Amino acid sequence: MNYKMMGRFLAQILFIEGIFMLPALFISLYHGDTMAVRGFLVAMATAFIIALVLFFLCKGAPSAFYAKDGLVCVGVSWIALSLVGCLPFFISREIPLFIDAFFEIVSGFTTTGSSILADVEALSKGILYWRSFSHWVGGMGVLVFLLAFTGGKGQGFTMHLLRAESPGPSVGKLVPKMRKTAGILYILYIVLTVLNVIFLLIGRMPVFDAVCTAMGTAGTGGFGIKADSMASYSPYLQNVTTVFMLLFSINFSCYYLLLLGQFRSVFRDEELRLFLGIVGGSILLIILNLRGFYDTMEETIRHAAFQVATVISTSGFATTDFDLWPSFSKSILVVLMLVGACAGSTGGGFKVGRLLLLLKSLTRNIRLTVRPKKVLVVRNNDTVVDEKVLANTNAYLAAYVIILFVSFLVVSLDNFSTTTNLTAVIACFNNIGPGLEAVGPTCNFSAFSVVSKLVLIFDMLAGRLEIFPILVLFAPNTWRRR
Amino acid sequence: MNYKMMGRFLAQILFIEGIFMLPALFISLYHGDTMAVRGFLVAMATAFIIALVLFFLCKGAPSAFYAKDGLVCVGVSWIALSLVGCLPFFISREIPLFIDAFFEIVSGFTTTGSSILADVEALSKGILYWRSFSHWVGGMGVLVFLLAFTGGKGQGFTMHLLRAESPGPSVGKLVPKMRKTAGILYILYIVLTVLNVIFLLIGRMPVFDAVCTAMGTAGTGGFGIKADSMASYSPYLQNVTTVFMLLFSINFSCYYLLLLGQFRSVFRDEELRLFLGIVGGSILLIILNLRGFYDTMEETIRHAAFQVATVISTSGFATTDFDLWPSFSKSILVVLMLVGACAGSTGGGFKVGRLLLLLKSLTRNIRLTVRPKKVLVVRNNDTVVDEKVLANTNAYLAAYVIILFVSFLVVSLDNFSTTTNLTAVIACFNNIGPGLEAVGPTCNFSAFSVVSKLVLIFDMLAGRLEIFPILVLFAPNTWRRR
Repeated sequence: MNYKMMGRFLAQILFIEGIFMLPALFISLYHGDTMAVRGFLVAMATAFIIALVLFFLCKGAPSAFYAKDGLVCVGVSWIALSLVGCLPFFISREIPLFIDAFFEIVSGFTTTGSSILADVEALSKGILYWRSFSHWVGGMGVLVFLLAFTGGKGQGFTMHLLRAESPGPSVGKLVPKMRKTAGILYILYIVLTVLNVIFLLIGRMPVFDAVCTAMGTAGTGGFGIKADSMASYSPYLQNVTTVFMLLFSINFSCYYLLLLGQFRSVFRDEELRLFLGIVGGSILLIILNLRGFYDTMEETIRHAAFQVATVISTSGFATTDFDLWPSFSKSILVVLMLVGACAGSTGGGFKVGRLLLLLKSLTRNIRLTVRPKKVLVVRNNDTVVDEKVLANTNAYLAAYVIILFVSFLVVSLDNFSTTTNLTAVIACFNNIGPGLEAVGPTCNFSAFSVVSKLVLIFDMLAGRLEIFPILVLFAPNTWRRR
Repeated sequence: MNYKMMGRFLAQILFIEGIFMLPALFISLYHGDTMAVRGFLVAMATAFIIALVLFFLCKGAPSAFYAKDGLVCVGVSWIALSLVGCLPFFISREIPLFIDAFFEIVSGFTTTGSSILADVEALSKGILYWRSFSHWVGGMGVLVFLLAFTGGKGQGFTMHLLRAESPGPSVGKLVPKMRKTAGILYILYIVLTVLNVIFLLIGRMPVFDAVCTAMGTAGTGGFGIKADSMASYSPYLQNVTTVFMLLFSINFSCYYLLLLGQFRSVFRDEELRLFLGIVGGSILLIILNLRGFYDTMEETIRHAAFQVATVISTSGFATTDFDLWPSFSKSILVVLMLVGACAGSTGGGFKVGRLLLLLKSLTRNIRLTVRPKKVLVVRNNDTVVDEKVLANTNAYLAAYVIILFVSFLVVSLDNFSTTTNLTAVIACFNNIGPGLEAVGPTCNFSAFSVVSKLVLIFDMLAGRLEIFPILVLFAPNTWRRR
């Protein structure tokens, strides 16, 4: 392990986190929320002091940096970010328990959107802003931000970090330089977010609401600023959010290709097609299943589309209590929870791209059973997929299933219903937000024990960082000195 | 496809099935159940007539027989067996609906043990016997029986069939000749079943009950002959059943090695160790979780051990309604349902051996992420595991998960609770029997729609035959003529 490099890196990350808190601090100052101001000041001081200490302690770091170091760096820095990031909640006493504050900020950074709060409207504006901002920066990645705007040391370094933090089975480079790729991604992200704000403002949403909602949508996070999430907003605002949730679930490289005028390759992208097919099919099936549940067809379509978008994008906003829907619709949502969004988007879950690879390697395997001596390759968008990527996708599924069931077992100790336990774990692990029954869209996660909350925190981090950066922290030889 | 060979083979299978019905016919004659006698006579006549026709139609079959042919043969013959095997239920009018009779016999042959009957005690003795016998012959496999005692054509033929019908990631040959291996397996199976009967008779169980219970236990099936399954039998009889359910969940090659005096290699078998570890650990955790639930410690231990054995062996007998247990214990049972028994046993599920391979290939993958250039192999019992077996295990998981969720979606159309839908599918797919809530140990599957029943029948067959022989029936180029 290159500890000095990691230290330098952590110093940068925490420094940036401190800077990120400035707008929240100003909002709290403006509204005169003394306790919140104190919270942000303490958190910023903590961030800057640790950053300074690390900066001087870790001078003269060797430049050798390996794939493992990248994974560990990402895992450790997300934990550090969350430990400092939850201080405003805790010190302002707006979330009195430290474990709850930690849960809430991890839920924010990982863009999960599960909350332990019974009444978000009781929070002060500065805290609400910070909560929604954590979604925005967590969605595209704090490390990616760092790489994009400050530049890391050397190509290997940035490469390994970006790989570890970005979602999906394989990271495509848009341009040869990783740093530039990160920059392009962030610029696209900012432009789309601003567009989202504009569309919300057109629908007469107040500015503060629009900014917070757009940040939650962009990160596909799901923290709302109202107790009823999006239910009391106008149908127009709900529909805008539906569209943007889906837009943020699509691989960002598609937008880059669109800008370059390569419409054909976007149109033929297999993951995008599968994603749109799943979304369209699910909305249609739910509309059919919901006949007579709502008064008008408009309402049915709007709620069906919103809920499908919120679940497959793993956002977790709500306009209606889908726990009351008929079984078939609920089951579709449960399955969509597991599928998740496209690779290279801000959405979570198993990822549509992985599902595609899984289906293809499965088909190949069946064909191989039938004709054992044939040599068959798996293709994706007409390119042969590396066997290593396939093996990794399969290993990912294995890790995914095992973590899911172990978490389910531990959470069951709190003696909620089987559906509650299972959907709580699925909702956290896939960074969705609400589950069903006791963790349904109208409920929250505060009733779980500390142990369960720790497990769910682990799940959220493992889900957002795609398991391996978190698992590697527990591997015995990770912490051995070279 | 070698259609003529398949026809010859089907003829033999159906002929044997007709013979198998003789004891049930005699029991019905002895008890004077006219309708049941008629049922068995019609079924036997159907079996013999089809067998004869196929025998003459398929003369002069070419001897070329490939892996795919083996898969297709197994899939088709299990369906044929079930279609003929359900006739006694249907024609005797003891199960008035054909789909229910078909469900019941598939549940029998696949050793699932899910029932559509509200009151088994209303059935006549001959029908009860046939129901339990279907477990016994389905457990070790009808085709394996055929190979063992009549002999198939050529080594390739038997090899492919045995591979397709036997459970587990890789089929070990006990002796160089496949036919002999099949024979040894069946002799061990018969001896263990007889031992089970003797132990039950010692506990003063009536002979008919003992034979039926032992057959259900041997196949790890779970059809009981009482409405309350095993609840009204004495603690001794329940404990005997616990022990034998576990014995029948162990790879039969272990018994063969024990007979050969190779205690060391049995003791060091990694799958066996993991299996016993899981069983022991689960019983212990459930006992701890159940404190205060039953009056005495003896009762707690007995019920915990019985339920763990019944679920991990995928039998599905019941001594108590575990749906009333606390959440943690129920969750353990749900996870055990998915794990299942050892490869090469009569138990179902994902198989402990596969789980072991999955864990090992996952560990390797994490180590490869850390050190990408290392060459690492996966070992099992000190032997290097072929990469193809690993790839197959991973593909199996993918197929498993996909089938599970598609089935869950379709079954949800009947609008039962999420837990009911999910555990109904898990219970059928893993050949367990009861699930939770509306399909819990005290309930049955009759309320599902015809579509759901068909899906569950598919799941039971796919679960018992380890997916690929059934999936291959749906592959478009399977039915093309060569």
